Amino acid sequence: MTTTVAAYAVPAPKAPLERTTIERRAVGEHDVLIDIAFAGICHSDIHQAHEGWGRAVFPMVPGHEIAGVVAEVGPGVTGFAVGDRVGVGCMVDSCRTCDNCRAGLEQYCDEGPVWTYNAVGKDGRPTYGGYAKTVVVDENYVVRVPEALPLDKAAPLLCAGITTYSPLRHWNAGPGKRVAVVGLGGLGHMGVQIAHALGAEVTVLSQSLRKKDDGLRLGADHYFATSDPATFQSLAGTFDLILNTVSAPIDFAAYFSLLRTDGAMVNVGLPEEPLEVDIRALGGRRRSMSSSGIGGIAETQEMLDFCAEHGVAAEIELIGAERINEAYERVLSSDVRYRFVIDTATI
Amino acid sequence: MTTTVAAYAVPAPKAPLERTTIERRAVGEHDVLIDIAFAGICHSDIHQAHEGWGRAVFPMVPGHEIAGVVAEVGPGVTGFAVGDRVGVGCMVDSCRTCDNCRAGLEQYCDEGPVWTYNAVGKDGRPTYGGYAKTVVVDENYVVRVPEALPLDKAAPLLCAGITTYSPLRHWNAGPGKRVAVVGLGGLGHMGVQIAHALGAEVTVLSQSLRKKDDGLRLGADHYFATSDPATFQSLAGTFDLILNTVSAPIDFAAYFSLLRTDGAMVNVGLPEEPLEVDIRALGGRRRSMSSSGIGGIAETQEMLDFCAEHGVAAEIELIGAERINEAYERVLSSDVRYRFVIDTATI
Repeated sequence: MTTTVAAYAVPAPKAPLERTTIERRAVGEHDVLIDIAFAGICHSDIHQAHEGWGRAVFPMVPGHEIAGVVAEVGPGVTGFAVGDRVGVGCMVDSCRTCDNCRAGLEQYCDEGPVWTYNAVGKDGRPTYGGYAKTVVVDENYVVRVPEALPLDKAAPLLCAGITTYSPLRHWNAGPGKRVAVVGLGGLGHMGVQIAHALGAEVTVLSQSLRKKDDGLRLGADHYFATSDPATFQSLAGTFDLILNTVSAPIDFAAYFSLLRTDGAMVNVGLPEEPLEVDIRALGGRRRSMSSSGIGGIAETQEMLDFCAEHGVAAEIELIGAERINEAYERVLSSDVRYRFVIDTATI
Repeated sequence: MTTTVAAYAVPAPKAPLERTTIERRAVGEHDVLIDIAFAGICHSDIHQAHEGWGRAVFPMVPGHEIAGVVAEVGPGVTGFAVGDRVGVGCMVDSCRTCDNCRAGLEQYCDEGPVWTYNAVGKDGRPTYGGYAKTVVVDENYVVRVPEALPLDKAAPLLCAGITTYSPLRHWNAGPGKRVAVVGLGGLGHMGVQIAHALGAEVTVLSQSLRKKDDGLRLGADHYFATSDPATFQSLAGTFDLILNTVSAPIDFAAYFSLLRTDGAMVNVGLPEEPLEVDIRALGGRRRSMSSSGIGGIAETQEMLDFCAEHGVAAEIELIGAERINEAYERVLSSDVRYRFVIDTATI
């Protein structure tokens, strides 16, 4: 039997969010019922609410940065108990049998993972995200939030945190490595903190120096304005890794020139518009361009433990649900430092 | 004192090659004088003769696939003696002090290596390539051709061989790895042989099945026509490495879809025209696009030794110098299996 819960939904493409109710499935054998405490607002919520990534399912309840407390567990659940502090990120299931799933890369599941919202679950019903009072998720797609992390500041880690942690680890950000983070927004402010905690020498490349104080406080060693052409001259051939968190078109050739031999530029944003690049600009030094999407479940847990250990969390502006539409506008104008988080008690 | 030697030169951009004479420098302390026996014709000779890569120096003596015999050595030469069978590839010097040079990646020298032709040497004089009777090269940029390799079939290894060997090694082509080689031309026919000798499972992706018999004979396990859309469906998510030897625009998004998680597409051609790609097509599985250029000197020696050990060499059509212009036309129409080599005795 389903349960009716309050939520904020986008009724139609580009329409404002409205308070409504949705049905959550009954708690199954391996399910965890989570009382959601906080839900982050990710730029990709807006992409999808606007159908910027293609056809979407409406009404849509966005939200894939979910932190809360376990309220009920199914009889087969072994990893969680009532009262546990937990998180749910961008996916709530996957095929579990393909090579990627077996390798802990559920986010690259060959059949496509079941996304937390704007998708269809294995029961054939639409999935609804975290802008709601509760959510029911298979325990294999739930992670534990360490005590050291406040739930509100932990919520954005479930997407912004893992989206930056995973490529930083995969491309070996650490001592002796020079890492640039392009853009100091929701993703970038996590990337800077995590790269710094991993021991890398961190440079922020931002359009202006407006957020320089923040960048340095978050752990950056250097901060340059990309609007200044001298930046690209002085930093030529510098970086082992450039983590591009910007979803808008940028001058890729200019950024490639900042890579050392064997350096990688990794895109973690997913823009709505084509990002054309002349691959000749890679320039032959085995420099590479790649992209990375979130991370696997085990790696997400690893990231949360790492953040707890190193005192890393999101910097947030906590809002009531009635301000979601205003927050969307402010995200679009880059007016947030650095993540809006919805207090779901207000839904 | 310089020495006057016969050569074939391009007098002006796009002009036919003509027999002429050039001056070679006197044999210096660390120099080796090589009697050139054979010089391969590389597509990049034509790019440069046509000024397709930007402003070039004329008259131009192309040729960076040089095989011959040592005729004289400078007093400080320790690695070579008169009578040694040797080769010279795309570069004849570099700064020797930058990180790349010290790492054996002279081809990525921070100051730019001194290219074998269409460049300016450390003495301030233009460099001239292998379409000539002799060449004088610092011994540090000369490699040894093993006895097992005939000089004529070894010449193309100095560019086509190392250009494919280096990325195949760097991206770990070997047992258990699935490697696709795009295009079965001068580079591709070396890539197939080397990838096979390294133990990889090799697939040729060619426009048609016209050269299929050759491909399989050279060591390919599979051969598909890219003109057939079914190829891209049946091979989706297959390859660890795609070595793209084609310099013309291709549908990169379609090729990216053939990569497994963490797979790499590496471009070794250097096209004259922009190759635009929408980087969103990388699709988030940490798939990467990269480029690679020739290889370092030590690695070039390693490649020659590897080829000798595994019976790998270029398949060539040996021509007299009077047929160079005809050969250029045939290269441009892909009418060569698989490399023209000039018998420099005919110059």
